[in-house]
Amino acid sequence: MYEDLRADLTRLHLELPKNGLVTWTSGNISARAREHMVIKPSGVTFEDLTPESMVVTDLEANVVEGKFSPSSDTATHAYIYRHLPEVGGIVHTHSPYATAWAANAREIPCVLTAMADEFGGPIPCGGFALIGGEEIGAEVVRVLRGHRSPAIILQNHGVFTVGPTPKAALKAAVMCEDVARTVFLAFQLGAVQLIAQEHIDRLYDRYTNVYGQRSGTPAKGPA
Amino acid sequence: MYEDLRADLTRLHLELPKNGLVTWTSGNISARAREHMVIKPSGVTFEDLTPESMVVTDLEANVVEGKFSPSSDTATHAYIYRHLPEVGGIVHTHSPYATAWAANAREIPCVLTAMADEFGGPIPCGGFALIGGEEIGAEVVRVLRGHRSPAIILQNHGVFTVGPTPKAALKAAVMCEDVARTVFLAFQLGAVQLIAQEHIDRLYDRYTNVYGQRSGTPAKGPA
Amino acid sequence: MYEDLRADLTRLHLELPKNGLVTWTSGNISARAREHMVIKPSGVTFEDLTPESMVVTDLEANVVEGKFSPSSDTATHAYIYRHLPEVGGIVHTHSPYATAWAANAREIPCVLTAMADEFGGPIPCGGFALIGGEEIGAEVVRVLRGHRSPAIILQNHGVFTVGPTPKAALKAAVMCEDVARTVFLAFQLGAVQLIAQEHIDRLYDRYTNVYGQRSGTPAKGPA
Amino acid sequence: MYEDLRADLTRLHLELPKNGLVTWTSGNISARAREHMVIKPSGVTFEDLTPESMVVTDLEANVVEGKFSPSSDTATHAYIYRHLPEVGGIVHTHSPYATAWAANAREIPCVLTAMADEFGGPIPCGGFALIGGEEIGAEVVRVLRGHRSPAIILQNHGVFTVGPTPKAALKAAVMCEDVARTVFLAFQLGAVQLIAQEHIDRLYDRYTNVYGQRSGTPAKGPA
Repeated sequence: MYEDLRADLTRLHLELPKNGLVTWTSGNISARAREHMVIKPSGVTFEDLTPESMVVTDLEANVVEGKFSPSSDTATHAYIYRHLPEVGGIVHTHSPYATAWAANAREIPCVLTAMADEFGGPIPCGGFALIGGEEIGAEVVRVLRGHRSPAIILQNHGVFTVGPTPKAALKAAVMCEDVARTVFLAFQLGAVQLIAQEHIDRLYDRYTNVYGQRSGTPAKGPA
Repeated sequence: MYEDLRADLTRLHLELPKNGLVTWTSGNISARAREHMVIKPSGVTFEDLTPESMVVTDLEANVVEGKFSPSSDTATHAYIYRHLPEVGGIVHTHSPYATAWAANAREIPCVLTAMADEFGGPIPCGGFALIGGEEIGAEVVRVLRGHRSPAIILQNHGVFTVGPTPKAALKAAVMCEDVARTVFLAFQLGAVQLIAQEHIDRLYDRYTNVYGQRSGTPAKGPA
Repeated sequence: MYEDLRADLTRLHLELPKNGLVTWTSGNISARAREHMVIKPSGVTFEDLTPESMVVTDLEANVVEGKFSPSSDTATHAYIYRHLPEVGGIVHTHSPYATAWAANAREIPCVLTAMADEFGGPIPCGGFALIGGEEIGAEVVRVLRGHRSPAIILQNHGVFTVGPTPKAALKAAVMCEDVARTVFLAFQLGAVQLIAQEHIDRLYDRYTNVYGQRSGTPAKGPA
Repeated sequence: MYEDLRADLTRLHLELPKNGLVTWTSGNISARAREHMVIKPSGVTFEDLTPESMVVTDLEANVVEGKFSPSSDTATHAYIYRHLPEVGGIVHTHSPYATAWAANAREIPCVLTAMADEFGGPIPCGGFALIGGEEIGAEVVRVLRGHRSPAIILQNHGVFTVGPTPKAALKAAVMCEDVARTVFLAFQLGAVQLIAQEHIDRLYDRYTNVYGQRSGTPAKGPA
């Protein structure tokens, strides 16, 4: 089942170490596939992943196909797909700068035009939730439903990003760490300038509705 | 049109991720070509760029040749070429350390002999300007006209560098991030020593007028 | 003797520079092999290591086989194997973030769920001990015996990690530097949230007893 | 002249970018060769270096052989060779962490056993000196003559390291940046523990006189 999607996911997972978002086997990506989802197997290193190693589950996190156990975050992914029907792909990482903000239970403030573009304002921080059950999924859904930001950081834990496709969620994860780093650095210098809300709104509107290539590739995308 | 220049620009763009100046599709380079400019297409990743994907526009930012939309920063590049006739190449990035200074609306002070050499003093910081129209270009031109520094950081945004060629502008972008990082680190240690203006002047004069290989390659260049 | 183990150790050593844990020739890995241990030769760079260059010693650190001198940390490794019979592999590094905590003689506090998973709480810091004799080994054994954490940092020095296999010890060394970095960054932001002990206990229990692939690969491993 | 040495120097220069010590064309290595020295050409990027591009000068910095101009730091290298007869190789970089300490005109304090081993104590900081003439060389010689440390940082400038061979000087440059980074990080955590002088002395003595492979390779070298 879902051969092309398994191959896509295998390739996308390699972007996680390449972009410095993961260490050892931490981090995972999933894709919605009709009434199922496809997700990384648990405890397999990124360079050992193959299309065949990917696991198919239903949206209650029951394995449908796959010789490995699915990621320990499967229940969280399934919960998000059940409650956010527009989501087609999810990425989870412990990327270091974003997770440092999360260890402070602190949203990442919007001090960069690139953040206004991509996240429409600050990146929100959800509360502490234990791993394993549906607590994390519930916290992600509570915060991201209706939110401009496709990224959330979770207290003491890490990052979840969502998108219409796994690639869009991956881009959000990459940009989340990028802005988390730059804003971290900015705060070390001591006199950060916030962007006015009206400017954030204009940047987000322009970026969402105007830029990028009009055909084929997604409408979003700077530069 | 401009086949060699398109090939050059494609190669130069690969230096941006290689030097850690860009993330995903952010960042772009352009070159002046007679009455036109050649620039990166919007929303295309660096590894997918080809000479054919580059876009030719006139200096009012109207597309002359190219199957893709040009970078969302095209109006800014065009404005700079119209107002600074000595500029033959422009680079734009959100490189993290330089952008952290920009988020503080703070020029990067001259505390390194390499900065005195390359930038002739501090790297200036321009004010906040919205993306999309000519506001950013106007701010770049206002600050850089007659300035020693080929680099400017823009509040809450990122970096623009200029040069007689795209390669010279690229070098300025690479060096800008390098000194932005070292000066950032220096300020975390708490007792940074400024360089006296007379020493800055002597270093800049020596570097501009004396060093490098005398034939072929540009006169500027340390080591 | 121990041909397969020599080949494994050679491959595992390459993970040290790849993960940014070592500089030049610093850092080493050993494996217990029946009544012996196999360890890196002293002063050989990682890319020059071969299976033949590995040194076999007894558990009193006397060379049994090998044309090179063994690592200058051999006495420490031997002491640990003699006193902690469950240990099958040991890794030593001066990885920068973990060593920065060590230079402060400060344990790394548990503010990440990934730390609760992997280390069961804070990463402990041992006291100052001179290199060369058994002082370091004694300090490692004193702190790690019966401790949840497979990693210890040593004041003004660096990191030792242990595991049932060299690969498990390597994973602990990689994760130790990863969390040392994220917790370092978190403390720069100023209001770090500790995880309650009962939550740490539940995370550690779940991670140790439930997750990962049940057959073949080790039970531990997130994602 | 000096064909083997030219080839060696070309290879060693590639270690500078590989270890993150240089940006663009900054940084250079030289080797003493009988009554001459061989040094990097000015303004040539590291990947464009060839054995033929290296420049031979006498110890008054006059070009003896070479089609390129020698490094702009040639007078400094020549001065050091003239005044420190035990020096066979010199490396110069602006590596970021070491240069951050230099921008504070601050020696790097000895808080790591690896520093005691390699540098025998703190890494000293020389005063401000203008580039181009002999001022920098004089400052390097004044501080390093009779000093345990093979590395010096120069106020507002960067790093010079010396050794019996260019490779030994390169190792000192790599280790200098490594410890500059770890000690920087340690100081951000706020309560750094100095190593007692008697412990520094014992570590330095042991490292210098005991460790490493006894035949062939240099006696110095940890792990």
